[in-house]
Amino acid sequence: MTTPAPASAASGSEQLILTLSCPDQPGIVHAVSGVVTGVDGNIIQSQQFGDPDSGLFFMRVEADSPSGRGPVEAGMAEVGSRFGGTWRVEESGRPLRTVVMVSREGHCLTDLLYRQRSQGLPIDVVAVVGNHPDLAPVAQFYGVPFLLVPVTKDTRQRAEDELLDLVRAERVELIVLARYMQVLSPAVCEEMAGRVINIHHSFLPSFKGARPYAQAHERGVKLIGATAHYVTPDLDEGPIIEQDVARVTHADSTADMVALGQDVERRVLAQAVRWHCEHRVLMDGSRTVVFSR
Amino acid sequence: MTTPAPASAASGSEQLILTLSCPDQPGIVHAVSGVVTGVDGNIIQSQQFGDPDSGLFFMRVEADSPSGRGPVEAGMAEVGSRFGGTWRVEESGRPLRTVVMVSREGHCLTDLLYRQRSQGLPIDVVAVVGNHPDLAPVAQFYGVPFLLVPVTKDTRQRAEDELLDLVRAERVELIVLARYMQVLSPAVCEEMAGRVINIHHSFLPSFKGARPYAQAHERGVKLIGATAHYVTPDLDEGPIIEQDVARVTHADSTADMVALGQDVERRVLAQAVRWHCEHRVLMDGSRTVVFSR
Amino acid sequence: MTTPAPASAASGSEQLILTLSCPDQPGIVHAVSGVVTGVDGNIIQSQQFGDPDSGLFFMRVEADSPSGRGPVEAGMAEVGSRFGGTWRVEESGRPLRTVVMVSREGHCLTDLLYRQRSQGLPIDVVAVVGNHPDLAPVAQFYGVPFLLVPVTKDTRQRAEDELLDLVRAERVELIVLARYMQVLSPAVCEEMAGRVINIHHSFLPSFKGARPYAQAHERGVKLIGATAHYVTPDLDEGPIIEQDVARVTHADSTADMVALGQDVERRVLAQAVRWHCEHRVLMDGSRTVVFSR
Amino acid sequence: MTTPAPASAASGSEQLILTLSCPDQPGIVHAVSGVVTGVDGNIIQSQQFGDPDSGLFFMRVEADSPSGRGPVEAGMAEVGSRFGGTWRVEESGRPLRTVVMVSREGHCLTDLLYRQRSQGLPIDVVAVVGNHPDLAPVAQFYGVPFLLVPVTKDTRQRAEDELLDLVRAERVELIVLARYMQVLSPAVCEEMAGRVINIHHSFLPSFKGARPYAQAHERGVKLIGATAHYVTPDLDEGPIIEQDVARVTHADSTADMVALGQDVERRVLAQAVRWHCEHRVLMDGSRTVVFSR
Repeated sequence: MTTPAPASAASGSEQLILTLSCPDQPGIVHAVSGVVTGVDGNIIQSQQFGDPDSGLFFMRVEADSPSGRGPVEAGMAEVGSRFGGTWRVEESGRPLRTVVMVSREGHCLTDLLYRQRSQGLPIDVVAVVGNHPDLAPVAQFYGVPFLLVPVTKDTRQRAEDELLDLVRAERVELIVLARYMQVLSPAVCEEMAGRVINIHHSFLPSFKGARPYAQAHERGVKLIGATAHYVTPDLDEGPIIEQDVARVTHADSTADMVALGQDVERRVLAQAVRWHCEHRVLMDGSRTVVFSR
Repeated sequence: MTTPAPASAASGSEQLILTLSCPDQPGIVHAVSGVVTGVDGNIIQSQQFGDPDSGLFFMRVEADSPSGRGPVEAGMAEVGSRFGGTWRVEESGRPLRTVVMVSREGHCLTDLLYRQRSQGLPIDVVAVVGNHPDLAPVAQFYGVPFLLVPVTKDTRQRAEDELLDLVRAERVELIVLARYMQVLSPAVCEEMAGRVINIHHSFLPSFKGARPYAQAHERGVKLIGATAHYVTPDLDEGPIIEQDVARVTHADSTADMVALGQDVERRVLAQAVRWHCEHRVLMDGSRTVVFSR
Repeated sequence: MTTPAPASAASGSEQLILTLSCPDQPGIVHAVSGVVTGVDGNIIQSQQFGDPDSGLFFMRVEADSPSGRGPVEAGMAEVGSRFGGTWRVEESGRPLRTVVMVSREGHCLTDLLYRQRSQGLPIDVVAVVGNHPDLAPVAQFYGVPFLLVPVTKDTRQRAEDELLDLVRAERVELIVLARYMQVLSPAVCEEMAGRVINIHHSFLPSFKGARPYAQAHERGVKLIGATAHYVTPDLDEGPIIEQDVARVTHADSTADMVALGQDVERRVLAQAVRWHCEHRVLMDGSRTVVFSR
Repeated sequence: MTTPAPASAASGSEQLILTLSCPDQPGIVHAVSGVVTGVDGNIIQSQQFGDPDSGLFFMRVEADSPSGRGPVEAGMAEVGSRFGGTWRVEESGRPLRTVVMVSREGHCLTDLLYRQRSQGLPIDVVAVVGNHPDLAPVAQFYGVPFLLVPVTKDTRQRAEDELLDLVRAERVELIVLARYMQVLSPAVCEEMAGRVINIHHSFLPSFKGARPYAQAHERGVKLIGATAHYVTPDLDEGPIIEQDVARVTHADSTADMVALGQDVERRVLAQAVRWHCEHRVLMDGSRTVVFSR
């Protein structure tokens, strides 16, 4: 699973995911479904949404193509050009080449690797990158290379170069910050725009910053939460993919909230990663369109 | 709002909802979107689902039609015939002519009428029918006729006739059993098949029958629930539209569960009624396809 | 139910709620349970909590007292004095004399009055005060006086005086701001400190201020929420009693969020009011201890 | 942590958990708090509940004892005898000696071991017992012995003997059935009554038996659930400790429900195990009293 499959041979049918974002206008659905019909394909599932605020139209189609991927890409290229939009044709189920970045807390990493192995989470983890060595054994257990890249004031630039080298050498498609406690540099954010997912341990926009559970405890909230979002240079402000909460009481200390919050964090992050890898998340300015099942 | 609007005049654009169920096969989406394109219309939102178990395909489209409803109906008739399916074209936002049936507990009725008045729930309540007089003042407050139809062994047939007369005279499109504690006759079930929604005060299939909270308390469950479903002659077995739960503890008596459950019941029932009236619920054998937002 | 019952006659047993907050130290539970034992009473339910942060201890006891209320009050006075704490002895189930303040949106008012009548919410609504006349019919339906107190720059002082007159004349114990869109004056906040509950239509501390749903939509959050809190002069910063959330998607407009949010608001507010009236909420600095069931 | 600590030396204070179940009657709380006061101890947290149905009273106290455990046990023995109840004095935070039993699915085992290592779940896993070898590597990764005990018609008796030998040799205090797909024998159920926790992959009492997700899919429910309960010889009927649910739609296949359900299962099981090990769960006939935080 470490190498993307080539465009399927002529022999068999291929299951594809088509996505399109473009200015809203008549005829889009008909044009896209026409591409599928044109290859004698069949639409299995499809969702559309027109955003009245941004004036954009979003579409995701799962379809069988007896003629394979080539003619569908050709068709979508024509449609995308005609409607002035952004489009993609992806092989359904293909795992994305992923780097998971971690610090010391392992709940998200453990969960992602478990789900990848046992629950069909479509990621192909080419490496775990940690700025601490603590989680190397977890990576090892799942047979994934662990790369120790410490980050200090002096090594920050070198660390960043190492990461970009890895991303390019391994043709990385997705970076998941699984409780990685360092800030990614603007250069990485830019190169991987829309392809870096972070889990923030609060219900954003509440409690930005580094100590959200302590803040939550101090404020006396009755629910704590977690937020998975795309990373942008503007910290904790990227487009939100998924959020969830858990109930807490006056009897829960900050430490209790940390433990309770870990459950929410790993669940929310895994959900966001799954949706991203199934090409269900489309960018709508600073927001996301999520075509969840 | 008590009379369905006529097909819109040629002058203005009309917003329509198209639904289609048919055996799954290539070309359905293209054909339906072609109907919209053919009238120079625009698809606002659309959802599709193919059920691998039943082999059926389901589709719901919200579209603007500058040519009004007529040509869209003609187009869908052709498509329905070609693909061997069931189709409907509905005016978006038109409230359905509804009878709400009640006994003594008013939480669901109060909620439905409140939502109809203040939250745009698209029902047009032509009458509240009660087998007890208790809730007449609630109907009166909201300006809805209240019809007292007591049901005893002797009057059961007469009560049923009265209900069917009302349904026919008022061209009723939906009956909502809002904690109505009598069983509808097979004749009514048949005449209104797929158009009678009941709220059952348990998380079906747990605790069928008349005393679910007492059963739940006795069993010591930690969550109680409610289920909105279409009514079939087979009691508590109709297709489920929506369910939800609330947490309970050992300290909750049966009476506490009843009170807590009422919140879930009214929320679940209102959600199911809204989805039904927005034509989001399609029947898939003994199950439902719900194209929720 | 409009007048608090006098201390019960010697003849019958009385059910009481005892609460105590004091600096944490050994012997508190034993002292309080000794008060109950001393009157041949029986503890039905009891909860305690020691806050390691504030060093305070909180206790709530439901007990039967065959000797009535007097000797229990005497005992608690002694205990309170010995441990340097704040204590109360309340008749269990006695509804609190309540004023509900509203503007134009009726979902919370309708819900509170419905629950008071049909679900045993222990409030005795002596008046509904509105700065708009819109909700007078709702109050009238439930047989509650409606007092129109418009608030403009010129009338603000007079409105405040009118409210304080009402509070004093009617011995009001609780003010509920049921989507009241005006700010209470510091004078009222002070006189009724710890006895004014507001529902804020966001998941505080996210989205303070007047337009939380619009802010939530703009930020693209995936959950919206509501917060019931005690009112302090510091707007939207009072101690939180209860919070809850509802899921939203990219397809929900601000108006959709408003409608969905109303469900959360009324549920959260009713829960907070019930807990307050059952004397389950104790103040712990800027936080609350909630001895929920 | 494999050996329970001896009663603490005279030097230091010890944190204890006291539980008591007895017929409801006046004076219980005063008597128990008197035990704590008698050793110059301090109550940190305490909860009580009287069940009007069973007539039983339940109590849980967390207390510091400067005199250690001995005198508290002596005091509770006297109290238990006086009130005709069942009592325990446990060291707070002491992990219970636990056997986890598994078949092929590893999500619950992985989760329990992760939480034990990283989240302070107070279990001391002395062995993982599997009737298949699949999960041996997981046990190995966490440094826990794995015992393969296949179960066939012929080996059932031998397997049972082996398990009982292990339980006795290792002084096992808790057995967790973490998706163990065999039925425990009545002999084991009896010997370990109230100390075997199972996770059932449905929202009991819905969908008893072996294929709950298939049944749930067929019935078209909109929520699936999981139930952690004590094991009794009466299958799927033991006292419920905890339940939770997850939302599903028409688009979720049985396989999707299995994957979604695993999240609920592991969360519910871990919660139940934690509460059991913190001595928060008391048996009330066929129900449980759960003094959750």
